[in-house]
Amino acid sequence: MRSDGRAVGELRPIGFERDFTTMADGSVLISFGRTRVLCTASVNPDVPRWMRGRGRGWVTAEYSMLPGSSPERVNREAARGRQSGRTQEIQRLIGRSLRAVTDAAKLGERQVVCDCDVLQADGGTRTAAITGAYIALHDALSRLLAAGKIETHPIIEACAAVSVGVIDGVPLLDLPYEEDVAAEVDMNVVMTESGRFVEVQGTAEGQPFHRDHLDALLDLASSGIEQIISLQNRLLADPPSSR
Amino acid sequence: MRSDGRAVGELRPIGFERDFTTMADGSVLISFGRTRVLCTASVNPDVPRWMRGRGRGWVTAEYSMLPGSSPERVNREAARGRQSGRTQEIQRLIGRSLRAVTDAAKLGERQVVCDCDVLQADGGTRTAAITGAYIALHDALSRLLAAGKIETHPIIEACAAVSVGVIDGVPLLDLPYEEDVAAEVDMNVVMTESGRFVEVQGTAEGQPFHRDHLDALLDLASSGIEQIISLQNRLLADPPSSR
Amino acid sequence: MRSDGRAVGELRPIGFERDFTTMADGSVLISFGRTRVLCTASVNPDVPRWMRGRGRGWVTAEYSMLPGSSPERVNREAARGRQSGRTQEIQRLIGRSLRAVTDAAKLGERQVVCDCDVLQADGGTRTAAITGAYIALHDALSRLLAAGKIETHPIIEACAAVSVGVIDGVPLLDLPYEEDVAAEVDMNVVMTESGRFVEVQGTAEGQPFHRDHLDALLDLASSGIEQIISLQNRLLADPPSSR
Amino acid sequence: MRSDGRAVGELRPIGFERDFTTMADGSVLISFGRTRVLCTASVNPDVPRWMRGRGRGWVTAEYSMLPGSSPERVNREAARGRQSGRTQEIQRLIGRSLRAVTDAAKLGERQVVCDCDVLQADGGTRTAAITGAYIALHDALSRLLAAGKIETHPIIEACAAVSVGVIDGVPLLDLPYEEDVAAEVDMNVVMTESGRFVEVQGTAEGQPFHRDHLDALLDLASSGIEQIISLQNRLLADPPSSR
Amino acid sequence: MRSDGRAVGELRPIGFERDFTTMADGSVLISFGRTRVLCTASVNPDVPRWMRGRGRGWVTAEYSMLPGSSPERVNREAARGRQSGRTQEIQRLIGRSLRAVTDAAKLGERQVVCDCDVLQADGGTRTAAITGAYIALHDALSRLLAAGKIETHPIIEACAAVSVGVIDGVPLLDLPYEEDVAAEVDMNVVMTESGRFVEVQGTAEGQPFHRDHLDALLDLASSGIEQIISLQNRLLADPPSSR
Amino acid sequence: MRSDGRAVGELRPIGFERDFTTMADGSVLISFGRTRVLCTASVNPDVPRWMRGRGRGWVTAEYSMLPGSSPERVNREAARGRQSGRTQEIQRLIGRSLRAVTDAAKLGERQVVCDCDVLQADGGTRTAAITGAYIALHDALSRLLAAGKIETHPIIEACAAVSVGVIDGVPLLDLPYEEDVAAEVDMNVVMTESGRFVEVQGTAEGQPFHRDHLDALLDLASSGIEQIISLQNRLLADPPSSR
Repeated sequence: MRSDGRAVGELRPIGFERDFTTMADGSVLISFGRTRVLCTASVNPDVPRWMRGRGRGWVTAEYSMLPGSSPERVNREAARGRQSGRTQEIQRLIGRSLRAVTDAAKLGERQVVCDCDVLQADGGTRTAAITGAYIALHDALSRLLAAGKIETHPIIEACAAVSVGVIDGVPLLDLPYEEDVAAEVDMNVVMTESGRFVEVQGTAEGQPFHRDHLDALLDLASSGIEQIISLQNRLLADPPSSR
Repeated sequence: MRSDGRAVGELRPIGFERDFTTMADGSVLISFGRTRVLCTASVNPDVPRWMRGRGRGWVTAEYSMLPGSSPERVNREAARGRQSGRTQEIQRLIGRSLRAVTDAAKLGERQVVCDCDVLQADGGTRTAAITGAYIALHDALSRLLAAGKIETHPIIEACAAVSVGVIDGVPLLDLPYEEDVAAEVDMNVVMTESGRFVEVQGTAEGQPFHRDHLDALLDLASSGIEQIISLQNRLLADPPSSR
Repeated sequence: MRSDGRAVGELRPIGFERDFTTMADGSVLISFGRTRVLCTASVNPDVPRWMRGRGRGWVTAEYSMLPGSSPERVNREAARGRQSGRTQEIQRLIGRSLRAVTDAAKLGERQVVCDCDVLQADGGTRTAAITGAYIALHDALSRLLAAGKIETHPIIEACAAVSVGVIDGVPLLDLPYEEDVAAEVDMNVVMTESGRFVEVQGTAEGQPFHRDHLDALLDLASSGIEQIISLQNRLLADPPSSR
Repeated sequence: MRSDGRAVGELRPIGFERDFTTMADGSVLISFGRTRVLCTASVNPDVPRWMRGRGRGWVTAEYSMLPGSSPERVNREAARGRQSGRTQEIQRLIGRSLRAVTDAAKLGERQVVCDCDVLQADGGTRTAAITGAYIALHDALSRLLAAGKIETHPIIEACAAVSVGVIDGVPLLDLPYEEDVAAEVDMNVVMTESGRFVEVQGTAEGQPFHRDHLDALLDLASSGIEQIISLQNRLLADPPSSR
Repeated sequence: MRSDGRAVGELRPIGFERDFTTMADGSVLISFGRTRVLCTASVNPDVPRWMRGRGRGWVTAEYSMLPGSSPERVNREAARGRQSGRTQEIQRLIGRSLRAVTDAAKLGERQVVCDCDVLQADGGTRTAAITGAYIALHDALSRLLAAGKIETHPIIEACAAVSVGVIDGVPLLDLPYEEDVAAEVDMNVVMTESGRFVEVQGTAEGQPFHRDHLDALLDLASSGIEQIISLQNRLLADPPSSR
Repeated sequence: MRSDGRAVGELRPIGFERDFTTMADGSVLISFGRTRVLCTASVNPDVPRWMRGRGRGWVTAEYSMLPGSSPERVNREAARGRQSGRTQEIQRLIGRSLRAVTDAAKLGERQVVCDCDVLQADGGTRTAAITGAYIALHDALSRLLAAGKIETHPIIEACAAVSVGVIDGVPLLDLPYEEDVAAEVDMNVVMTESGRFVEVQGTAEGQPFHRDHLDALLDLASSGIEQIISLQNRLLADPPSSR
């Protein structure tokens, strides 16, 4: 039994507050248990210079942890003057994941920036960010479609992410902070609705891990992501409010 | 009549979601109309080096606008590698305002950092930030007192802020973004419960302004702040939840 | 009686060394007592990118304290790699003040940068900088007019600034460093020849302050600025030397 | 058949020039085909501040590509003033991989920095860097042991890395640049001599990928790493030269 | 005949305004023709960390050009966020020159920072800076001696610098900007009162230069520096004012 | 007799590994004794913005020391976020030296960047860098000529550099690190095949130095450079391999 009473293959409660803010083209406040990430998608009618003239769009992401999101205050990266390696690694991961399910040609020459700001951190912030950013991006694109600026919705299929890990030799799904720091193996998995992988990142925290643990973690992640995607689909069955 | 139907001396609806997040020692999501700022207060058991050994504490503040807080995406300062002059000006103002109502000796040698992150921007973000940070700071200090770490509550009196401005020669209270960009004079006022001033910052946006306009703006601000402080006091009449 | 023997409403001796340097289009070494600021105005035949094509000019300012300007050496910001919040706040203030008295359309698509470098600091550096930068700007524009590059002088009216403060409950005009650090209230006021306000920035250093102190400070500042502007006008009655 | 004539599961020629430089405590110039990385290990008799007093050591890594290492010159990060996200991601990966096979207690309170500078880049630079840095680290620690500064060799088991990918649906081992840019899936795998995983990082470049491809890639990587580790072991069978 | 009427081996008029500012421990406004540099020396009762505990002092220098010092405005390095290579090269040169004539042991564990800020630039700013910084440093040390903080004056002998160059095959002494940009060879020489060299830096601007030109330039520089040092000595014959 | 047995006017063994890497247009691994510098030349079909439209090319250089190049690890400048003053000084020197022997008009509107990365440092890295960069540049330009992109080879004459210094009053040629730190005078000289000077930089490390020492050092340097240039010419007598 896990410290919060969940079974090994059980997700934390997942919530979506759609249009939590209303300035960006898409916005959702996603929660995985106590982890809460505000994800917004802002459409920019221009692409980075190196992409101009190809008729294709670009989706990118930025990530931060608000200083007050953790019991021990996190230093503000803008004050330090640079983003940490961890931050850059995470925002590159989010961007790649979203691009994998977006048809760049259908998007046309515009850029969507998905901002993922962690309001409260309790493990799994990067996977919550990917899962929420997908919603914000989808809503922003739905509004673009409704406004007649694009002809077809550029999203190819749904995409979500979850963390898995091994503690005391037991593979577990969706680790909160307390479990995360105790895990021997830490893995983040990003998958699509068709059950395919976008990203698999597994790291031995102490001891290297065996192939059978890797396989078990991938199984757990697949099952968790399937559940998450069905929650996403239920939400997106209704179109976003018009503005 | 103003575009949102308010009278010239009427505040926008003000809301406080206390303990909107629960990791920091104090937290409130404050709203002034559509402007929403997440304010957290984190207590650090240490003061900056230059203050050590004096038996006095320090209160400071940091401010940012989340990129998705505005219709036109705001560049992330951590990505640019530095905070703008505007950001630094605002966070210095918030810090000074909070220190003016905090007894540094009663706080003891610890630092409280108040983080004000704008989730949605519709004018008056700095004054909402001061007003909310006061709540977050007060709650953090109340918890410090409840935990027996300090003997007396260090807050001297309540403090709040509001923006005022002149449009077409008419002084107005609490300007949303639409009015803010049209204003000929823009003023931010920080006052205390005893009706005294902590900060007065008035700027001619186009034409310089007359003394009588200055006086009228100060009157409007005083009346607005009085109302805001009574809302703060009502909220703080209940102690924060224990953790 | 003040430590330097002045009356409460008396200015320090003010001096202008016009064309102290001769490379920039306008230049003055201004002194307020022992505070000395070298102000230059450089005309650039181009505006920032975001202003192009509007037929309007731009006036901006930069500020620094030379490291040797104070008894305790001031760190060089170029060596530290960034400008402090204070520096940015001051240079934004100077720029806004100058723009408030400049007709951007008459200036045409060119930029004037006013550099204010403090050679010796004894309180009131930002107000001396505004007062001197106005002269340097005026001279630079007079030369532009004399050279036939513009048709009308773009300055609308004179502008100057002074600091005021309260010590031991007494409002005082034009504070040197020694008084500045002791002041309970510190206020910087920028006004024009027509007696109107461009900027009012008052800060409680310790205790919040009452409205009657605020009013008294504004009165002192008005009277001081009136005297300073008459000195400026006397100087500018003669055109700058031709080059 | 691949463009360089290799079979799908065949490695490029791998070479080690041990002690290519002789200033650092360990040094090797490793080549994977045309990819060449100079790896050095420098022992520092101190640990980062946050680790002091625990009796444990630390292994970290830094990575760069020399500007002339590619046909299109790579910008020098020192000149740009910051390391890219890619660089930081890679050096974090190298560091974690090395720490996974080092006994921090046996190392004692000292730090080893492994620098991996790519002299020539033709795909797989990060996996070559890990493989080479392991040699440099091992030699540096052997010299520390020979010098009597530690009692036991801190390396637990050998560790190496290789890239794998899928092109036109075919899983391939050890991709040169030409294949790397064409790959649909790109995966980097770090394993130990006991056949366990330290890191698994798989990324869909275009289309998401199926579990069977993931399994096939892991099989290829395992077989490749087994061969690489046997080369490492053959090299390390001789102790490093004494200095 | 040179454009300003000087003979080939003639210096521009050299002036020293001693104690031009009075906050730093030493201060001089030096002029070489129209080039004017404010040099201050600030004594700091501490040495850099790497020098502590050796009983020796340190002399260092910083250099900048004020933005308004040139007809075409010079970008402010603090605003750009970093010092140019040229600036760093110059301030390292000034520092080395001053240290060459200072007895670090007699100085004791304190640091003197000499700030050289160019108010007006017309060629030869670095050599004027060295020549002026020597005066500011000497005065600061004289005051330290007068205050009983050191026992002997740490200056070993006088030091000054001058630029020389070749135009149309003719070696010239002390080049103003107009000549500087036309020079085929540009050389800066720092010498001491005993006629010895501290620094010699010669650069071919277009064509490489012959040994006989080099010899002629060194002769010109020696004669110029001899004259400058006699001006320095005349000035320093009087002790600095007491404060 | 010197510690390595050389005579006072004897060079260390000098080696060139031409095309040590094969991605850049020119590449050489040069060694001066134990000092080894990898020099590459990359041709870029564009010039910096300020040079466009003049029909002339540009040659520039960048320099770094790899962290593992010294017994005490050198901090990586990319990690620190900026290049030291020393690095900038050296790379400016290399660039000026190469431009002095390159005909910019014959090069046409293209830029060549010469990267000099020190793999092993034992004194004289900057002079080895200039000497090697000349080879890499020459080869890159020979390939440009062979490819028919330019009509004449832009190199005017050969150029090389060497360090000289004085120890215990004895002038010495080509100092390794051990001698470099002990030298009273340190001088770097860059000359051309025709025996003319491109750069002369002499620095008194402790005591200022006499003219006769300066003359003796220039003699030593001339003789050393003559030998080095004959080695360069022998190497360049064969054209670089075609690619």
